[in-house]
Amino acid sequence: MDKEIALAVKYEDGRLFFLDQTLLPEKEVYVEITNETEAWTAIKRLVLRGAPAIGVGAAYALSVCADHLAMETVSAFCEEIHRIKEYLNCSRPTAVNLSWALNRMESRLHSSDKTTVAELKEVLRAEAKAIYEEDVRMCRKIGEAGQEIIKDKMGILTHCNAGALATSRYGTALSPIYVARENGLHVRVFADETRPLLQGSRLTAYELMKAGIDTTVITDSMAAVVMKKGWVDAVIVGADRIAANGDTANKIGTYGVALLAKAHHIPFYVACPYSTVDTKTPSGEDIVIEERAAEEVLCGMGKWTGPKGAKVFNPAFDVTPHALIAGIITEKGILRAPYDQSLRKLDCR
Amino acid sequence: MDKEIALAVKYEDGRLFFLDQTLLPEKEVYVEITNETEAWTAIKRLVLRGAPAIGVGAAYALSVCADHLAMETVSAFCEEIHRIKEYLNCSRPTAVNLSWALNRMESRLHSSDKTTVAELKEVLRAEAKAIYEEDVRMCRKIGEAGQEIIKDKMGILTHCNAGALATSRYGTALSPIYVARENGLHVRVFADETRPLLQGSRLTAYELMKAGIDTTVITDSMAAVVMKKGWVDAVIVGADRIAANGDTANKIGTYGVALLAKAHHIPFYVACPYSTVDTKTPSGEDIVIEERAAEEVLCGMGKWTGPKGAKVFNPAFDVTPHALIAGIITEKGILRAPYDQSLRKLDCR
Repeated sequence: MDKEIALAVKYEDGRLFFLDQTLLPEKEVYVEITNETEAWTAIKRLVLRGAPAIGVGAAYALSVCADHLAMETVSAFCEEIHRIKEYLNCSRPTAVNLSWALNRMESRLHSSDKTTVAELKEVLRAEAKAIYEEDVRMCRKIGEAGQEIIKDKMGILTHCNAGALATSRYGTALSPIYVARENGLHVRVFADETRPLLQGSRLTAYELMKAGIDTTVITDSMAAVVMKKGWVDAVIVGADRIAANGDTANKIGTYGVALLAKAHHIPFYVACPYSTVDTKTPSGEDIVIEERAAEEVLCGMGKWTGPKGAKVFNPAFDVTPHALIAGIITEKGILRAPYDQSLRKLDCR
Repeated sequence: MDKEIALAVKYEDGRLFFLDQTLLPEKEVYVEITNETEAWTAIKRLVLRGAPAIGVGAAYALSVCADHLAMETVSAFCEEIHRIKEYLNCSRPTAVNLSWALNRMESRLHSSDKTTVAELKEVLRAEAKAIYEEDVRMCRKIGEAGQEIIKDKMGILTHCNAGALATSRYGTALSPIYVARENGLHVRVFADETRPLLQGSRLTAYELMKAGIDTTVITDSMAAVVMKKGWVDAVIVGADRIAANGDTANKIGTYGVALLAKAHHIPFYVACPYSTVDTKTPSGEDIVIEERAAEEVLCGMGKWTGPKGAKVFNPAFDVTPHALIAGIITEKGILRAPYDQSLRKLDCR
């Protein structure tokens, strides 16, 4: 079962591979990462994407680079590791998990009591593995927590890709679906294609089909009809940031899906690591939404589908008000309204 | 002003031209139609699309073919016209306006008291012109009726293309916008791109920009956010068929837009010729919805954006329940709920 879940990062016998997600769904190609330049370029080019997956991939990349270093003194080795770490960290400057994972690797090096380069290489290998395994465990816990809302033969609609491809394994929004499958349940998934960048049809449909899960691709504009037909029992999406009151920023289109779910009396869930909650942001009003290039909408797949020079509004995310959210599925369990209280309570633990 | 509105069909000095809508928005090319094969192929290939535009284009095409006929006897001429008419009618067998316009042309021939081939050619020219002018007049009346809901500087969201390109001029859903512009009002239009076939970004944005109307292209998934921002004062869409109770079948995605409009307290209007009302269909439940090929969703822009062989649900239309419709804008005025009564009343006039 496990091996059917798509893996964004593979580490086998000391060799590191990234699934080239820019070629999906047409081609499934793993590229080997043997040095810092290959790792930097792969992250920059979005071969590897999804914050947790980037963190894990960068940690393993640092370890692989370390394995190839020929220095004999610990101080020269540590200096070189620092340089590579800084370099890899520039590949996607805003990705929090990237710098978090790289800093953790370097800190581990400095806190180690080992005294030889060979031993320190082993320390880095072990730390990368720990980061990987913690991410798998966290994702799996989200999936287990989600079983509370899963029933056999239910229909689930999801938007964008918060799946295995964005993490080490299982994903966040898709984790309850994978865990249900491991438990022998059957769920039917409707994947919104998720314009403009089509992560739903390119990535979510790919990874669910690979895992043998019944998946139907629809355009975003078809979600309402699919709900009206009674095919959807729950919506589960990921999250980019959750404010203290539960308002949730996620891929553009999520807010509309939440409104459509409400109109059809379908519960709408968000699934994410608890670290997605930003208690310093009071509400969705305070979340700044990135606007992206017009070309993504007008020329998204290499062909002009709108007039050149047309005015475009292209926000990358939207905010779903907490009132539309039936529950937030985290590795610590499902949080329920009132979110200002349930999120704060968990934050104090 | 007038010449800024895009024309799907041009007839100048006895020569007929169709705007090749398959090349929009990248290229604006008018192809000349000089014989029956060119006309048949152009309609088949969707160079010309939109039921009213097809009717007008086919009528002119029949007249142009007639002009080139060398027969000297009226009976031989009429026989040949019949053959060409039957041939053109096969280009899109399900387009009601196509057969309606062609039959009207032939009937006019038979009801004429003219006795020479030259005179009959003139009869056909006049009839094609009459069909064209009636369509322009009807579209304009829809636009005039729509002024009741138009205010200066308002924002209007539309879905798909029910514009000038689908008719002789003005369109249906876009006619109130063009007429408002002629009256010196400024409206701002949000054009849903309308997946899978992108008529919104390819055609609506093209024709509105050509007419100098402030237009912003969005993906279908952005409509909810644009409404939440307060930028949309009304939604106006076209219709493919309206049932006796007011339930309206239109391009897939329309139902979702209507739900989103309701959630934001924005009035949702349908604009169409009264002939779109099918009083023999009691409700939306009775309208059969065509499902189209998976490739439209997975490979819509010439590139595979979803896994080959993925399951797809691709309905071409959806039904918006009458309860979500604030008014139906027709050439006979704006009809309001209860629609079973307002539609019936008009039907009896």
